[in-house]
Amino acid sequence: MSVVPKTGEAHALPTEERRGVYRAIHERRDVRSQFLPDQIPDVALARLLNAAHHAPSVGFMQPWNFIVIHDRGVRAAVRDAFLRERVRAAALYDEPRRSQFLALKLEGILDAPLNLCVTCDPTRGGPHVLGRSAIPDTDVYSTCCAIQNFWLAARAEGIGVGWVSIVQAEELKRILEIPAPIIAVAYLCVGYVSHFSDTPDLERAGWRRRLSLAELVFADRWGRPETKLRAAFAALSGAP
Amino acid sequence: MSVVPKTGEAHALPTEERRGVYRAIHERRDVRSQFLPDQIPDVALARLLNAAHHAPSVGFMQPWNFIVIHDRGVRAAVRDAFLRERVRAAALYDEPRRSQFLALKLEGILDAPLNLCVTCDPTRGGPHVLGRSAIPDTDVYSTCCAIQNFWLAARAEGIGVGWVSIVQAEELKRILEIPAPIIAVAYLCVGYVSHFSDTPDLERAGWRRRLSLAELVFADRWGRPETKLRAAFAALSGAP
Repeated sequence: MSVVPKTGEAHALPTEERRGVYRAIHERRDVRSQFLPDQIPDVALARLLNAAHHAPSVGFMQPWNFIVIHDRGVRAAVRDAFLRERVRAAALYDEPRRSQFLALKLEGILDAPLNLCVTCDPTRGGPHVLGRSAIPDTDVYSTCCAIQNFWLAARAEGIGVGWVSIVQAEELKRILEIPAPIIAVAYLCVGYVSHFSDTPDLERAGWRRRLSLAELVFADRWGRPETKLRAAFAALSGAP
Repeated sequence: MSVVPKTGEAHALPTEERRGVYRAIHERRDVRSQFLPDQIPDVALARLLNAAHHAPSVGFMQPWNFIVIHDRGVRAAVRDAFLRERVRAAALYDEPRRSQFLALKLEGILDAPLNLCVTCDPTRGGPHVLGRSAIPDTDVYSTCCAIQNFWLAARAEGIGVGWVSIVQAEELKRILEIPAPIIAVAYLCVGYVSHFSDTPDLERAGWRRRLSLAELVFADRWGRPETKLRAAFAALSGAP
């Protein structure tokens, strides 16, 4: 930041608070292995759900619901659905990728003290939601913003979140008795953790590397390199 | 927070940093009217894009690209596309809703010093992305998490973001020369602002009210009230 703030920066958060936002973003992890059994206090869970509820939504639609799952039977059924899909997914890979896939820990459904299903109701707000006429999927986009709010608030509280996507959405809906029009967007494992890893699990496991940001940014139209930002990208530091 | 942290809370961010995360979440707005002409410094824009790039992504797919748009001609073309869709959308409403819709300021495409298109490449990472076998749309879900990271980092920096969804995605793709398989997920207006409003524009305009969080949360299965959290929800305060 410049020493004398520009007019526009007058509404920036104070230094420590701004650092917190970047820390939550950079130190957030998709947690599968480090869950502790400690229960999450109701007041903390309420803060996380309230953070999710304050996400942006198309036409202020707020299409989300949150199913907080403590029940062990429900969770065991979800884990069975995960195991079935895992077998199906493994068959898509050739060796040695298949063995590498099967060796990865990809969920903490029974380890985490609670699970959370986040859904999207496409019918909420009636047939003509403001801002949704051109791109109907903006309801799901809004729901994903709510999930990311939850995830970052959780990181701020020292709570880990792991998103289990290796499960058929229709199976989730059957187990959780979710009605037909509703979309089961995410199934999350949530709990305090022994530690947050410095890097994503899949990067550390050698599954896939982080892409170069500079190569993902274009100028004015697709495919034109944004050379103006190269120096600024190169100067980024401190981000894990 | 309890005075003596529980084991699990050992990884919570310090108080000020945690407050920053919640402030960014609760004081973030979808900005249409308050943009200042000040250019965003390259280093600040690089931090925001890097925040987006550190979103979670299915199988560490990182399916996003970012088109930074300064060009006035490109932006004028996008605004024309917005205006066409706005007319089409207005026709969906009866009076007095139609007039109310047309009176709303719904974009800052030419007011903001820069625009940003965020896209999703469903082909990135090959045909079998880990964790995407059951729910192919998880690529777009990841991209939305990146958008929310960008939005919250921007709020921390005092930078406003407005998501323009009243535009046909195919028109955006034509204007920005985005190739066929790529999905144009979001078109954002970005800039410093004169102020952040206390409440969402659509709430203040009487278009739609904020829903009760308690009514959106279920226990174990769809439709079962989560009564256990009611007291904690009622005790939430300070959130605008």
